[in-house]
Amino acid sequence: MLISELDTPALLIDLDIMERNLAKVAAYAKKHDLRLRPHTKTHKIPALARRQLELGAAGITVAKTTEAEVMLKAGPADLLIAYPVVGAAKLERLRALAEKTHVTVALDSLEAARMIADAGIRAGILVEVDVGLGRMGVTPDQATLLVEEIIRLPRVEWRGVAFYPGHVKDPNNEQEIAQLQTAILELVDRFVAMRIPAPIVSGGSTPLLWHSHRFDGLNEIRPGTYIFNDRNTWAGGACARQDCAATMMATVVSVQGGRMMIDGGSKTFSSDKLSTGGPGFGEIVGAPGALFHKMNEEHGYVDISKAERGFAVGDRVSVLMNHVCTAVNMQERIYGIRGDEVVETWVVEGRGKLQ
Amino acid sequence: MLISELDTPALLIDLDIMERNLAKVAAYAKKHDLRLRPHTKTHKIPALARRQLELGAAGITVAKTTEAEVMLKAGPADLLIAYPVVGAAKLERLRALAEKTHVTVALDSLEAARMIADAGIRAGILVEVDVGLGRMGVTPDQATLLVEEIIRLPRVEWRGVAFYPGHVKDPNNEQEIAQLQTAILELVDRFVAMRIPAPIVSGGSTPLLWHSHRFDGLNEIRPGTYIFNDRNTWAGGACARQDCAATMMATVVSVQGGRMMIDGGSKTFSSDKLSTGGPGFGEIVGAPGALFHKMNEEHGYVDISKAERGFAVGDRVSVLMNHVCTAVNMQERIYGIRGDEVVETWVVEGRGKLQ
Repeated sequence: MLISELDTPALLIDLDIMERNLAKVAAYAKKHDLRLRPHTKTHKIPALARRQLELGAAGITVAKTTEAEVMLKAGPADLLIAYPVVGAAKLERLRALAEKTHVTVALDSLEAARMIADAGIRAGILVEVDVGLGRMGVTPDQATLLVEEIIRLPRVEWRGVAFYPGHVKDPNNEQEIAQLQTAILELVDRFVAMRIPAPIVSGGSTPLLWHSHRFDGLNEIRPGTYIFNDRNTWAGGACARQDCAATMMATVVSVQGGRMMIDGGSKTFSSDKLSTGGPGFGEIVGAPGALFHKMNEEHGYVDISKAERGFAVGDRVSVLMNHVCTAVNMQERIYGIRGDEVVETWVVEGRGKLQ
Repeated sequence: MLISELDTPALLIDLDIMERNLAKVAAYAKKHDLRLRPHTKTHKIPALARRQLELGAAGITVAKTTEAEVMLKAGPADLLIAYPVVGAAKLERLRALAEKTHVTVALDSLEAARMIADAGIRAGILVEVDVGLGRMGVTPDQATLLVEEIIRLPRVEWRGVAFYPGHVKDPNNEQEIAQLQTAILELVDRFVAMRIPAPIVSGGSTPLLWHSHRFDGLNEIRPGTYIFNDRNTWAGGACARQDCAATMMATVVSVQGGRMMIDGGSKTFSSDKLSTGGPGFGEIVGAPGALFHKMNEEHGYVDISKAERGFAVGDRVSVLMNHVCTAVNMQERIYGIRGDEVVETWVVEGRGKLQ
């Protein structure tokens, strides 16, 4: 099928770019002896998780137990649920998952660890440590105390620590990088001093992806967005413009003077702004001066008063999205393309798996 | 089933409030002789569209042709696609829809009207007029010219005008209300003067819902959110707190000092802020002082440093959402509740129908 035969809005993945992105991160992780456990929340497609495993990923990461169930189809030998598993229904799902593969859960409380142990589930535990973002995670002091208690619980096995340095936006900020390095090493040293060295020290974030090897002590990374990349990845410096594999093809449905509407809004792209704070909800590719400045649920407002080209009802445009993960999550299918052709149609099987 | 047996996050609808909301708008429309054509984008569930029709709605409204296909199950005698139908695949869907029920399309260009006529589809047309929002819509001057051309097209039938005064946020702003009234009457008068009076004059928005009868010339309204209401509806003054039927039940997965995380972020609630510009992504019900101030995809950050109650891992909270339409669109199912019981489980059949 040709791309031109697809209905819009349609989320397209340039397969050559995607394969290059996958290979590049796989080679980087191998070169620096970092375990690669890609976060599949970006694509939510088992076939793509399988591709990541084929290229050497040590396992995969998911956020929720329902997502994990979908990702079992990729046959991961090792599955990290990077999120506490709290509540009876989720624990039942975790039990079934743990019977099928090697499962590890990241959490930050004794309550959450005890729920798993009390349910009699054999799972690994990573203790989540807050290195500055202020999201999940205990302090390094609390981490050692928590690990001491987890070690005493039956069935669950402590496997290490996890953190997410989402607060460090600029890898060239040497002061922030040095602070993060100190935090990681102090954490690692605490466990060495206790004679229970952490087997897994799992961290990283998209802006720091290519700097992961600079952190002594870190031995695992969990990148997600790198498979496709998006405007945020680009703005954050972790990829170049030509590494962005995903675009949304949309149709112009109205042109009135200096403005046009495209057939996608917050239900197609998500309302996510650029994480660096720049304007707009996406770049209209090949139309310098056009500004995709506002959205309703199904309307994308594009100011074309300063655009270098004109538009007519029925034209198709390509939009480089701010945040591909939230956009993919709203699609029933996404499409892999090469040149003018659609060569893959993937059902987003993990879409809406929120529990 | 009891609510406590549901897994989280779960979007709950209080059925008594929903029924009261439905009855109230139905009675209002009847009293003021306004055709009620509810926009089903809020719920995306055929069973709820059927309920709206049972209560006297003259037809239903959808945004997209794929949504329309889903809503055929509700058996609407009249279906408005309040959006231009542009592109071959959509026109094929429109053709099939038009063979099954009475279909009308709102559009704002001769190109879009001609596509329908050229495809040989029997459909009604509403011409969309911009009354100030700057989204879709021709000017009143252009509207008469466009209608004159549409009337000459084969098969399609001009049925009137549609507008969306989304720019008027405050129904107590008498100047804005007067301007809107003038715009509507001038538009209506133009067609009367041309001896082609518009059978349908369709307008309204959520903040103006209960003021629709004040606009002479208006004879149809297309409200959507009123079935559930949300924080936006409440903030905009179109409902009271006790008219909000929808809440998201979430679980506390982490508590660290003055902050906690709940098991839903932008993939559960959407990233929509309060349309009036207030802080936060939702109100944590029954916890004054708690502020749901930030989100990642699966994490909801709640500042509880000033909350009047404490929280522990495993607690369940109820969140009054900013924007229920975008949240519903990400759920696989939503639940109708009465007291402690889940009495309805609805699959969100129109979820992700973006084309």
